[in-house]
Amino acid sequence: MIDKAKRFSQNPLLRPEDVRPSLDGIVIECLLNPGAFTFQGKTWLLLRVAERPEQADDTVSALVIDPSAKDGLRVLSCQKGDPDLVYEEDPRSFVYQGNTYLTTLSHLRLASSEDGIHFQVMPTPTLIGEGELETFGIEDCRVTQIGGHYYLTYTAVSKWGYGVGMISTEDWQHFTRHGMIFPPNNKDCALFPEKVGERYFALHRPTLGETGLGGNNIWISTSPDLLHWGEHTCLLTTRPGMWDSARVGAGAAPTRTEAGWLELYHGADEQNRYCLGAALLDLDDPTKVIARSQKPLMEPLAEYEINGFFGNVVFTNGVIENGDTLTVYYGASDLVVCGATFSIKEILDTLR
Amino acid sequence: MIDKAKRFSQNPLLRPEDVRPSLDGIVIECLLNPGAFTFQGKTWLLLRVAERPEQADDTVSALVIDPSAKDGLRVLSCQKGDPDLVYEEDPRSFVYQGNTYLTTLSHLRLASSEDGIHFQVMPTPTLIGEGELETFGIEDCRVTQIGGHYYLTYTAVSKWGYGVGMISTEDWQHFTRHGMIFPPNNKDCALFPEKVGERYFALHRPTLGETGLGGNNIWISTSPDLLHWGEHTCLLTTRPGMWDSARVGAGAAPTRTEAGWLELYHGADEQNRYCLGAALLDLDDPTKVIARSQKPLMEPLAEYEINGFFGNVVFTNGVIENGDTLTVYYGASDLVVCGATFSIKEILDTLR
Repeated sequence: MIDKAKRFSQNPLLRPEDVRPSLDGIVIECLLNPGAFTFQGKTWLLLRVAERPEQADDTVSALVIDPSAKDGLRVLSCQKGDPDLVYEEDPRSFVYQGNTYLTTLSHLRLASSEDGIHFQVMPTPTLIGEGELETFGIEDCRVTQIGGHYYLTYTAVSKWGYGVGMISTEDWQHFTRHGMIFPPNNKDCALFPEKVGERYFALHRPTLGETGLGGNNIWISTSPDLLHWGEHTCLLTTRPGMWDSARVGAGAAPTRTEAGWLELYHGADEQNRYCLGAALLDLDDPTKVIARSQKPLMEPLAEYEINGFFGNVVFTNGVIENGDTLTVYYGASDLVVCGATFSIKEILDTLR
Repeated sequence: MIDKAKRFSQNPLLRPEDVRPSLDGIVIECLLNPGAFTFQGKTWLLLRVAERPEQADDTVSALVIDPSAKDGLRVLSCQKGDPDLVYEEDPRSFVYQGNTYLTTLSHLRLASSEDGIHFQVMPTPTLIGEGELETFGIEDCRVTQIGGHYYLTYTAVSKWGYGVGMISTEDWQHFTRHGMIFPPNNKDCALFPEKVGERYFALHRPTLGETGLGGNNIWISTSPDLLHWGEHTCLLTTRPGMWDSARVGAGAAPTRTEAGWLELYHGADEQNRYCLGAALLDLDDPTKVIARSQKPLMEPLAEYEINGFFGNVVFTNGVIENGDTLTVYYGASDLVVCGATFSIKEILDTLR
């Protein structure tokens, strides 16, 4: 048995039916990949909620961000057969009157728990896309606590591509938007929870496609202020023939251990099977990789991990550390939110 | 007559045969897109020189960067028919023993001139690729003078993609490497020649491909120190049906005028015809576009602009300002280096 995850018996912890849609006539299509943090003695998740309008037989409709609308969202509907309606190759989008619309739109929503297992989801969105670079929503948010601030790094999606946006908050009531910190196409950004030497570090994933130069690798960069980033270098690449042969991306903020910075990351193979593994980075110079999982630490094995909106996926961007225990909140099959625990010592043993 | 360029009668100013190859057995395939600057009373170009080994009938060979070799470069040759030799779809590369090689390799080389027309090219490369992120060479360098320093922003190419590298120098003898300042895929980075308010600004071009979300647009970003960049926003997009419908990218550092920051940029259409046009940006807030060329200011019209390695291309990343005159050094048809002058007043008149 390779899989090192102790799944919660209560999994899935949250399903689409546990969340109230943002508007009447909207359905929650998927719950995905939450950020995780502790605040005021509770465990919190910042869920990615993907919604779409209920589709009638004779219309095609999309949920769109509209600052002038009540709640900032409205439904755009167009008649099938309308000459202004054009389907493109990608079933996730269509074009109407020259503008592109996504069939689902994601926002971020808080859920809180006393025990880390039973979560209460807020009745309305916590954060929705704002401005030109987020017209297609915001997705997969990491939450990193540095000093008294929480830094949210998420995927900002628009017709201009997807990059990494950043928002900070102290109280989860007031939010400061810092704009895009990694230009497109980029996602899966995990900030280190403290400076290393004089600099902040972040992991991120420039996305260059499956063929030609580039690939889908984890990069590492430095910053004086968390807002401006440079010294970009390629850190962890895909490995042909292995579980992470097609795509790798960082999970949550790395955990400081005596052996090094421990990062749980996701890897996918050519069959789009997403597993979790670990990388160990030098404590004083995180651009040095000490070790990396030869086999995944967690694979899609449970029924809810194998079947869903997009099957055979375990994906985490929310981890909470408590002594030797890492509690990993994860999206399963792009449909439900689950939890599992790992022993840090046991993970480190696999990396020796 | 739309074309506003006064081409030098001496064009092309430099051809491949005017440059000495880096090694015996190597040929200069193309001279491309020089950066331009003044230093010690002379006009200087920093040429992109693309080289390849002379190809024998029975072998395939590539020029590769090798820090252990004399001059830092060596020729790798493999027998045709060798089972370790694999051709990929892209004719610009091949795979040997599992490693990818490009058929041409670019370095940067200085050329100087007393009159801005007759240039003397250095006999050896000035800068070649260094480290993991430049194994496939360095290309298309912009040179921006800020205070007593020259900042070189160029395309760093490797199997991990292409991003923007930065080098600085005071004396053109000693160079400081600052690593990659924009992660892949990104190119066409032009620094502003001074701070605007408290911040430095740069134009750059995340490259997201021709289809799907993204495109090939000019973005603008800010920095406290020229090394770390944030606040990325999309500034100038491609315009369907116009001369810059498929791709746009910044030229050299923008020129300060009373009307705003004047930037000459390149635009390409679906037929890969590259023209030059202008954008005018707000002096106090360069993220605001005041005006943009409806028609190109310069089109491939001369014979050497229409026919070459890759025909129908005028491309600049080197501009020198002198009063009302902008001298534009440009690559023509990806083969030769040329020059032309524009009147700033005349360009501004077209933008009113």
